[in-house]
This record gives sequence, structure tokens and C-alpha cells, in this order.
Amino acid sequence: MQNFTWHNPTELIFGKDTVKELAPRLKADGIKGVLLVFGGKGTFKSGAYAQATEMLNSAGISFSEVNDVKSNPLVGKVREGIQRVKAGGIDAIMPVGGGSVFDTAKAIAAGSLYSGDVWDFYSGKAKMTKALPIYGILTASASSSEVNNISVITNPETEDKISMSGPAIYPRVSVIDPSFQFTLPEKQTIYGGVDIIAHILERVLDGNEECELVDSQSYALIRTMMNVIPELIENPKDYDLRADYALAGAMAHSGFLSIGRNPRGDFSSHKLGHSISLLFGAAHGATLSVIFPAWSRYLYEDNPVPFARLGEEVFDIFDGSDEEKALEAIEALEDFFRDIKAPTTLRELGVKENDIERLADNACKLLPYGVLKELEPEDVLEIYKLAY
Amino acid sequence: MQNFTWHNPTELIFGKDTVKELAPRLKADGIKGVLLVFGGKGTFKSGAYAQATEMLNSAGISFSEVNDVKSNPLVGKVREGIQRVKAGGIDAIMPVGGGSVFDTAKAIAAGSLYSGDVWDFYSGKAKMTKALPIYGILTASASSSEVNNISVITNPETEDKISMSGPAIYPRVSVIDPSFQFTLPEKQTIYGGVDIIAHILERVLDGNEECELVDSQSYALIRTMMNVIPELIENPKDYDLRADYALAGAMAHSGFLSIGRNPRGDFSSHKLGHSISLLFGAAHGATLSVIFPAWSRYLYEDNPVPFARLGEEVFDIFDGSDEEKALEAIEALEDFFRDIKAPTTLRELGVKENDIERLADNACKLLPYGVLKELEPEDVLEIYKLAY
Repeated sequence: MQNFTWHNPTELIFGKDTVKELAPRLKADGIKGVLLVFGGKGTFKSGAYAQATEMLNSAGISFSEVNDVKSNPLVGKVREGIQRVKAGGIDAIMPVGGGSVFDTAKAIAAGSLYSGDVWDFYSGKAKMTKALPIYGILTASASSSEVNNISVITNPETEDKISMSGPAIYPRVSVIDPSFQFTLPEKQTIYGGVDIIAHILERVLDGNEECELVDSQSYALIRTMMNVIPELIENPKDYDLRADYALAGAMAHSGFLSIGRNPRGDFSSHKLGHSISLLFGAAHGATLSVIFPAWSRYLYEDNPVPFARLGEEVFDIFDGSDEEKALEAIEALEDFFRDIKAPTTLRELGVKENDIERLADNACKLLPYGVLKELEPEDVLEIYKLAY
Repeated sequence: MQNFTWHNPTELIFGKDTVKELAPRLKADGIKGVLLVFGGKGTFKSGAYAQATEMLNSAGISFSEVNDVKSNPLVGKVREGIQRVKAGGIDAIMPVGGGSVFDTAKAIAAGSLYSGDVWDFYSGKAKMTKALPIYGILTASASSSEVNNISVITNPETEDKISMSGPAIYPRVSVIDPSFQFTLPEKQTIYGGVDIIAHILERVLDGNEECELVDSQSYALIRTMMNVIPELIENPKDYDLRADYALAGAMAHSGFLSIGRNPRGDFSSHKLGHSISLLFGAAHGATLSVIFPAWSRYLYEDNPVPFARLGEEVFDIFDGSDEEKALEAIEALEDFFRDIKAPTTLRELGVKENDIERLADNACKLLPYGVLKELEPEDVLEIYKLAY
């Protein structure tokens, strides 16, 4: 087990009718004005917008709004929020939405205390060290952004989708009321679920064999998610299923499953997926159900052990050599994605065969990445071909 | 799933040679003098004392010492520490030891900022709201005291062993270097392991059936501990085994496994065990391997489902009725305790048949407790009889 430090300062408030619990915390912290950040009509449909504004009104806290945040959120929207904050009267940021909204809110929170352009934090030109406090309300689980210190933003001018992170952008408080997710479109439940499973797999398949305890926690989470997602598709308003899904969503990418192992994880699938979102507008989770099996098939012969273990722990595959178990596990994972109607080929995402080189060029901009295997440009191209 | 809030402010530093990482944190917080709290010669043997004092000397931080803290720590030792702090020159408490040492340090930290007697916090006469900061170094895992806000102290005059808790006594920073546990006596590895397993069972067996995710995490932890303990008995200096054990020890009673379920857990076994420690000086973990199976046998016929689930998840028991699976699971757990040479009868702890009524009288002082079943005095007596 590798050395680690663990310090997550976010206070998580989880459960039914809990938005109102933000009011005493905002007052205790002396917050007078907040910037509400949200997406589109889902925020209203879920009931989260009404509860958030009612809570703010009852607490006597003024608010301003930045809305229409899209998935794969754009730096332009972040700049709009920063302008609003710099105009005055705002001392905290309140995302009401899913990962894209939280990621945007974090960027606004940091950019508002910086004199240069916020993209500097993503391009690596400047180091982010401070941010306005963030009090968030989650309406869609997947990214763990509600409890981590990561923000991923897309810059369409430079064709970049890049993350930044740092202690200053941990939310101070996050509210997860799973019932806000009753009204999510089915596709979002599916893609969010794929994202959550990918966040776990990208850690547990890093090739580290000295983490029995965290491995066992990770596999237990995957098994739970594989039970929960199909049940949720049938019963989207089942509170306990939504609660398990939301809790798994908060844990998967919080850093908790990285303790004792390579803290970088092997996020190659995320990187390769980002380019598909960027160039073809594909939903983040949909890129992962395509790329993860392709990445696995490309690597497993040289690294059969972690995939064989996945087979044993998650799919009850105990017969055969490690290579055989590994391949069977990858096929079972792909079958699971197909069963929940997640795409498993690039074609389903609208990518044409002659787009593959352009995709690979884009994904190679961020090299090097990969822990189980550090990828070279030719690996990237081959994985996209396998995914086609 | 029940509503919950989760906020654990302790920074955990985990790994080899990590004591030195305390120095910059102490300096950043402006600490000039600390009270070192520790037990006996194990602190020297483990190397923790030498590393702690070297770190303090190199950081230019003065220290004073309170030593000879015993297991089932006494309020007299706490008062001695408080006197030392009140004499001046100390602005932080540094436990170097296991749960008893951390519990003592927390009591000193709180009592030093209180004008009355520290026992008031335990008896319920006063509410603890502030404490000196705690920077701890763990040398024996079991209680999770290094990452929680609980302190259990014994008052021999009143024959009470009582816990207090509150946000002020979360350690600010805790260092877990698993290699300090290489030199633990075998018995302590065994009893600590029993304690860790009991902390998990006392939550997962609370009868709550709406916590699939936390259940799956809990069972995975128990299975890992059941693999790790026998291996550690054979290889006490295996770093990765010690690390898994230490990480499980930190998680089990940190509150993490209570999220979404009854936050009280069903700690009847702990309560019944406390009286055995108090009156017969038995090691805490040894009382649990005796009481837990007896408590389970007493209850399972009216509550077969959680015990049957334990059988399926931990012992691969799938055949028979819930009652049959439950009984088989309890027997398998008792067999496991016997296999690792933990006691399973009161007789092995030196209790005589005519001591049982006195034990029951003591344990009834703290009633009511119990969630799966709220115990009555006659239940307490019957469980001790079964344990005999």
C-alpha cells in the first residue's frame, strides 16, 4: 500500500428535504449574496430551483443567476459568471445541478479571485490557490464534483477539455437530496451510472496488487451499481435506489478509492472519451461505455491479472487462465453496458471511420497518460479503431 | 436510507516514515508546546516515541509527558494531564499510542479548557464544546479513535465506563504508520481485530434493510479482516497486511459505516463488554469475542434476516431457511474467533458463575440500549448466562 494523506473538508448533507439545512450554515458564515449557477429546465422540474430560492429568500440572502450551463461545460459560461461576481454583491457560489454545473461553479469561484483569465488555471499558466466558498445542491450524480476538488472545463477555441484541481475548490457544504433525481431523463441515469462505474474501474485496474481492502470496497461498489442501474431504469422514483446511486456517485471519484494506490489512477478512458465529447458533442458517460471496453481489450493480454480479478469479484468468473478470465470479464462488462442501453461503439456516437485520425490527434495533445500502460500515439489510434 | 450529514475534519496521514510530516503542520498552526500522552514500553519498542520526540525537537517545539496510560483508561490519568496543561506552556495534545491513549488525550484536550471536573462530560453534567487541538500518532489500531470524535473513559470509584463525543475532539491531524504495529503483542493484534469486526457488525446488523451500498462496503471490510488477521498472526511484520488492518481499523468506527442507517448502531455488545472490562479487567476485544456470539444467539430467532445475510455475504451460507442460515453464520463467526485464539466464554475471562448477577447489575446501569432489540434487565442477564 502506498503512502497517502486524506483530508476532505466538504460537509455532506444527504437526504430528503435537506436543502433548508443550508440556511443556518450560510448565515453562520456571514454570506449575504450568492451566485446561483444552473443548467436548464431540469433544475425547475426536479424542484431544486424552487427549494433553493425559497431557502435563500427565507434566510434573507440575495442572489443573482447564471443559467444554461451545458454538459461538457464551456469556459465562456465561466467567464460570464466571473463578470457577474466582479460586479459586486456576491460572496459565495451556489451550483444547483450536476457535475457540469458544479465544475462551472468551481471555476467561477476561483476565477473571481484572480486578476487574469480563468483559463490560465486549466492551461497551467497559473496556479489556483483561492476561491469563494461553494455551497452546492446536487440534482444529478456521476462526477463526485459535489465532494471533490476537481473542475473539468472545455475551451472550444483551442479544442481542449482540461481539468484543474486544488484544495480551495472543495465545496464547503454540498446537499444531496436523491429525490431531485426522480425526474432525470433515463439516458442521464444510464450515462451517469456508466461514469460512476468507470471512475471505480479506472482506479481498481491500475495494476496495484497491494490494496486488498480498497479493492474489496471498489468491487463491492461496482456490484451494487450493477444491481441498482437496471432497477432504477424500471423504477426511476424509488428513493432507496436513487440514494444508493447518489452515494456511490459521491464516493467513486471523491479520492476515497485512490487511497493507498497510485493517486493518478489510469484515467486513459476518460481522456480518450473527452476528445469524443469535444469533437462530436457526445455525452460523457456514453463515451466511457464505448472506450472502456476497447481500452481493456487493447491492454488485457499484457496485463491479465487485474482484469481476471474483475471477473472473479464482479462476474463470478473462476474458470480458465488469467487471460481467459480477463477476456470473459471484458465481454461481460460490455454486455452489461449493452443491456442498460449504453452505446459500445464509436459508430453509435456518430463518429465516421475517417474521423478516427482527427480524434486520435486531439487525444494525443494531452499525452502522456496511462498507468497500467502509458499510452503512445499509436496506442491511442489503435484503441479508437477497436472502439469503432 | 436515512438522512445523514457527514463531515470528518481530521486530516489523516497514512504510511511509512510519516511522523515527520507533522512538523510543518504544527509550525503552520503556531504550536509551541505539546503534551505527549502515551502508555508503556510498547511506545518505545515501536519506534514511535523516538520519531515523535525527534520530530518535535527538530521543529523547536517543547514537550511535557504524561505516560503509563492503561487500556480501559482511567479518569485519574486524565486529571493528571489536565493539571499539567493548566500549569502552562502547552497548546496542543499529542497522543502516541492506541485507542486508550487517544481517548485519554481527547479527555485532556477538552478538560483543559473547562473549569469543572472533566468527569462532568462523561456523567452528562456538562456539555463539551471546545478542546485544545490534537495531533496524534497511532501505534495500535482498533478503536478508530484516531479519526473519530469519541472518548471512552473509566471511573473506578463509580464503577462506570462511559463515552462522550463532540466535534471539538476530532483530532486535527492523525498519523498512521502501520509499521509501528510490527511489534505489537500477538494478543493485541487478535483483540484489536475482534474489536474492528465488532464495530462493523454492530452497525450492519441493526436491522435496516435499505442500505445496500453501505451493507456491501461493510461485508467487504469484514471479509478482508477475516483474511488479514490469521495472516498477520503468521507474519506480524508484513507491511501490507498491517496497512489493510490499520485502514480497516480507522474506517470501522469512524462513522462512515453508519451513514444512511441508524446512527446509534446496536452497540449492546460493547456495553455488555464494558462491564466485563470494568469489573474483571478483561481486554476490550476479548470481551467482544465472548459477548457478540452470545448476543447474536439470544436475538437471532426473532431477527433472522440480518444474521442470514451475514451468512450469505461473509461465510457463503446459502442453503436452508433464514433461521438456519442465521444460526450457521453465528457458529461460523464463533469458530473464526476460536481459530484466531480469541476467547468465546466468560469463563476464559476469569468470570465465575456467581459473578454473573453482579455483571448484569453493572451493565444495566447504562440501559436503555440496543436497536435490533432494546434490552431489558432480564435480557442482559440471559445474554451473560449464554456467554458463560
